This record gives sequence, structure tokens and C-alpha cells, in this order.
Amino acid sequence: MIIDCHGHFTTAPPALGEWRERQIRAFEESGERVSPGELRITDDEIRTAIEQGQLKLQQERGTDLTLFSPGAGKMAHHYGDERTSLDWSRVSNDLIARVCALFPGKFVGVCQLPQSPGAALAASVRNSVAELERCVEELGFVGCLLNPDPSDGFWQAPPLTDRVYYPLYEKLTELDVPAMIHVAMSRNPALQGTCAHYLNGDTAAFMQLCQSELFQDFPTLKLILPHGGGAVPYHWGRYRGFLLDQGRPPLEEAVLRNVFFDTCVYHRRGLELLVDVIPTANVLFASEMIGAVRAVDPETGRRFDDTKYLLDSIPALDGTARQAVYGGNALRVFGRLEGVLKGTMK
Amino acid sequence: MIIDCHGHFTTAPPALGEWRERQIRAFEESGERVSPGELRITDDEIRTAIEQGQLKLQQERGTDLTLFSPGAGKMAHHYGDERTSLDWSRVSNDLIARVCALFPGKFVGVCQLPQSPGAALAASVRNSVAELERCVEELGFVGCLLNPDPSDGFWQAPPLTDRVYYPLYEKLTELDVPAMIHVAMSRNPALQGTCAHYLNGDTAAFMQLCQSELFQDFPTLKLILPHGGGAVPYHWGRYRGFLLDQGRPPLEEAVLRNVFFDTCVYHRRGLELLVDVIPTANVLFASEMIGAVRAVDPETGRRFDDTKYLLDSIPALDGTARQAVYGGNALRVFGRLEGVLKGTMK
Repeated sequence: MIIDCHGHFTTAPPALGEWRERQIRAFEESGERVSPGELRITDDEIRTAIEQGQLKLQQERGTDLTLFSPGAGKMAHHYGDERTSLDWSRVSNDLIARVCALFPGKFVGVCQLPQSPGAALAASVRNSVAELERCVEELGFVGCLLNPDPSDGFWQAPPLTDRVYYPLYEKLTELDVPAMIHVAMSRNPALQGTCAHYLNGDTAAFMQLCQSELFQDFPTLKLILPHGGGAVPYHWGRYRGFLLDQGRPPLEEAVLRNVFFDTCVYHRRGLELLVDVIPTANVLFASEMIGAVRAVDPETGRRFDDTKYLLDSIPALDGTARQAVYGGNALRVFGRLEGVLKGTMK
Repeated sequence: MIIDCHGHFTTAPPALGEWRERQIRAFEESGERVSPGELRITDDEIRTAIEQGQLKLQQERGTDLTLFSPGAGKMAHHYGDERTSLDWSRVSNDLIARVCALFPGKFVGVCQLPQSPGAALAASVRNSVAELERCVEELGFVGCLLNPDPSDGFWQAPPLTDRVYYPLYEKLTELDVPAMIHVAMSRNPALQGTCAHYLNGDTAAFMQLCQSELFQDFPTLKLILPHGGGAVPYHWGRYRGFLLDQGRPPLEEAVLRNVFFDTCVYHRRGLELLVDVIPTANVLFASEMIGAVRAVDPETGRRFDDTKYLLDSIPALDGTARQAVYGGNALRVFGRLEGVLKGTMK
């Protein structure tokens, strides 16, 4: 089974974005709330969006299953207050649950968390624990997205290793679900979203983990860095050297029992480096479709985000390793996935 | 001639750091200034610092010349006001000039600019123009460091492509000197300096350039991205795809006439990717010594920052290409360097 661990519902019916705009405007203008119940999307609208989008690409590329989350940029945690983020997360996650129910075995849910920046951070982590539990226990989700910068481009929060996040890590380990560390949009004109803020978020988070004792406190916690880990594999020697300079244990010990990298790198040379530098057990197949880049690469005739096509062309990724990267690792990292697929878990 | 285009005076005599601490404390406590004339460093102290540090490594590694700038982290542009940064830049740059005078043909200067964040940004760009001119015309410097985040970790400034920076680009092109885009320290606990903020600065700046018309306005402007360009070469396909999505010209046209990458990547696999993905004409040899990582790599028995050792071991980098990367490109990008070395320019 080929499992794409990183897909977003970027093709959601327009009513979703319209509800969100009304929600933001109402709060900004008068502090009022828009009820989640006001959102109307039919099953047919969902079917069309998925069948012409993510499912079509799954079939064309020969992948089997996508771990599916709301549009990451659209999480936009800086808007409103913690209730704003909570309502928006429930709306977004409920829609993902409907996709998964309409296409069983094709999509399994990964939830957005109701994070908020600034003074609301601690309260928003508590809300995130509850929303995570709801999504996993009631909706059958198998993971979540965790935004290391809920200020959306100004890096106002403490590192992810701060104790303010510990209630979330307790719940993640208790439920045996991983978090993908994924920033949302950037509202900072100096930091473009998909090609700067996204990659910078991955790089910053990795370094936070390298400097901390988080995995001593949570030895079974599993975190996934998307977009091939930002700059990390390309600068692997820099990190190895830094840990040596600091007298810390090597990366294998410090982070590789707990940190995984997805394959959202959109050219063959980059993917070759990834699977060469990072141990096979730590690499999870992913495409990020439909998302950051939509064009067809004139050099390959395939879409840039067709990472399966690129990985298939790397001979060094042999039988056993290929199987691990394409699915085996995901089944291990997403501890509830097998149960959800067999219907033994919700 | 092997030219290392990225070296910092991180081993400066302690009196320099002590002066800086007095300067910051005096301003914070009472708004007072500490005179640059109060700094006392003897030629012997400079000789010792260089002979036991950068010069020793030059000789061990068989490189000839280092383009030498003040410690990048220590630029710390967020402290004080624009006069604070101006005094500190003059002190730091004058010290670099003394190194270059004591070791002719071994070190040529690259200056720090007196940038400041926030309301002082525009005034600090005007000061930067004057300090650049002083360093190039009077001290024989051949380039400068340009910080894309003078807030030091909170990304408060507009992108480098904003018109507020245009007076600097006018002066850079007039003088025919390039700028290396290099952040300073990070005071943000979420963004470690050398392994997160540095790389993120490179990545963010590249994307700013990709989105702008800067090089239409300044067709001869030359900018260098240090640290192998942050995440950029590893994600080359993402950038290619993004430009296609946006209907913009390809990277070769959009940025590669003006943007160059140094080789501060501390493992062989990373450097192989760099010289494979980025055209040879756009890669400049550099080590960043003595700086980010000081340890010896147990896998090679060499220091991580001995990038010459690593590049020497890459067979794909052949005769002509090797010569270009090791020195030919630097002589082209640093337009005044040949004249300075021949003594025909100050």
C-alpha cells in the first residue's frame, strides 16, 4: 500500500472559504461569532471536489491512500481569538471527516488544531488537546498539524519544546498519534508562504528539537517535518557539527528516534539527497498535493508534486527501503492507521 | 588563486566585545555614547588572533585569500538606534581594515552596514550608503554584508526588494561591489542563530528576489547567498515550479544573472547537490571560517568547515569548473578585487 502522508483539502468547495471570511469579518467588525452550523456543503460538492482533484491524482499516480488535512495555509491561526480558531478548526476538521467517510480507504483524516498566538497560546493548547481527542476518538483521525508559528510569519511564540505545549504532547503520546509540524500562512511580506515560510518553519522546528530534552520527556512522541525537512538534509553536516560543538549526543540519538521527514521535494536531485542522507526508516512518502506547486515540470512532463514518479526513478531506493518509504514507515509512525483502515478503530 | 569569499573576524581580541558591551549598556541606561576612540587594540593582538586562527587555517587548507568581514552574528542591528549601529559598524570595519593592512594579499575587507530596524530603517539605509562608500573608497573593501532582518529574529522589515533599499543598490552598482545577504544574530528563542535563522534568512531572501523586479531596475547588481543558499538548491524544483505557476520567467533569467551561492555546506552530499543543481558560474568557494561550526567531523577527520577538503573530493567538479568555483567567479563577482590585489585600487 502506497500512503501519501501529506495531502491538503485545498480544493474544498467555495462555501468553506466564504464561511471563513464571514467569520473573520464578523469578529473584526463587532466581535460576533458565525455559527459553524451556517456552513452548507453537500456531499455531491465534496465528491466533485475530490474526484476531480486529489482522487484523480491518486489514481493517475498509483498511490492508494492520502492522510488528509485541511489546507495548511488557511489555518491562519493569527485571526481572531482562541474561540475563532476553535470554531474554524471544528468546521475544517468536520469537513475532512466527511471526505474520509465518502471515500473510505482512500483518505484518512489529519486534523488542524485551534492554536492561537500571544496571550491566547496556553488556552489554545488546551483547546487543541480537546479538539485532537475529538478528532481521533470520534472522527477516526490519525494525526494532527502543529503550527510552530501561530503568529503567521512573525515568530512570536516560544519554541515547540516549551512546556506550554506539554499537555498536547501528553495527549499525542497517550493517543499514539504523531504531529506534522506545519506552519500556516505568512502575513509577513518579507516571508513568502510556500517557498520561504514553509521551509523556514521546518528548519526552525528541527533546530528547536535539536536543542531540547523534549524526547527525554516524551520518548514515544513522533513528529514529522514536511517539505523534506526544509533545509535540514542539505545541511546535515552543519547540524552534526553543531551538536558536537555543544557536547550533545549525535542526531541519531538526539532526534532520529522521534523525528521523520516527508518527501515533498520537487526535483529528483533533492530527493536523492534526502533518501541518501536521512535513514530510510525516517522518510515518509508524501506529495503535498494539491498544493504548493501545481505546474507541470517541462523537464519531466509530470507535475512537480508527482514525487512518486521522481522516487520511482531513484535506483538507490531499493526494494525493502522503497516499501518502507512508500508505506511501511507511515504505518509505524501513524500508530492508529492500521486499526482505522481495518475498521477496528473509529 | 583560491579565494574564500566568506570569512568572519570571530576571533577578534576581547577588547572589541568589551567596547560593544559598554556601548550597548551606556545607551540603554542613559542614552549616552561610547566613543569609538576608546577602543584599544594593538597590532600584536590582531596578529596573534589572525595567525593562530584564520591565517593558520588558510595555510593548512591551502587557500590563498579570504574576503573578510566582521562577525555576522555580532552585527546585532537591533540594539540602540541608528547612531549605535553607525558607531559599531565603523569600529568593526576599521578593525577589519587593520587586519587587511597587516596581512596584505591574505585578507581583503567586506564591511558590515549600519542597519537598524523599525522607524530607523530608512535613515539607516542612508547611513549604510555612506559607510559602504567609506569602506570601499577609503579602506579598499570589495563588498558588504546586508542583513534582511535588522530586527534580529522577528522579521519586522519589508523585503530587501522594497524601494527603501534602493539608495544602497544604486551605490553598490555604482561602486561595482556585491552584497552578501547575511542575517545577524537571532534574539528570538524560537529561531536558533547559525542553524536556523542563518539558513532561513538565505531562503527568505531568495524568495523575495524571485518575486520582484529588482534586477530589472538594477541589472548589474550582484548578491551572494551564503550557507549554500539556505534551503534553495535542495528545493530547486519547488522554486522552478513556483515561477511557472506565477507565469514568471525561469530562474536562469529571473535571478541567476545576479544571484550567487557560496559553498558553506558542511558535508559532501550537500556540496554535491549544490554544484550539480546550481550552474558553476553561480557558485563561489567559501568556508565561513572561523564560525558556525568548529568541531572536527569524525567521519572525515577534518573540521566541518573545511569545505575545500570536501569540494576537492567531488570528481564531478572538474578542471575548469573547479577553477571558476575556487576563484574565477569571485574575481568576476567582486568587481574591484583584482584591482585591490594589484594595488591599483585602494
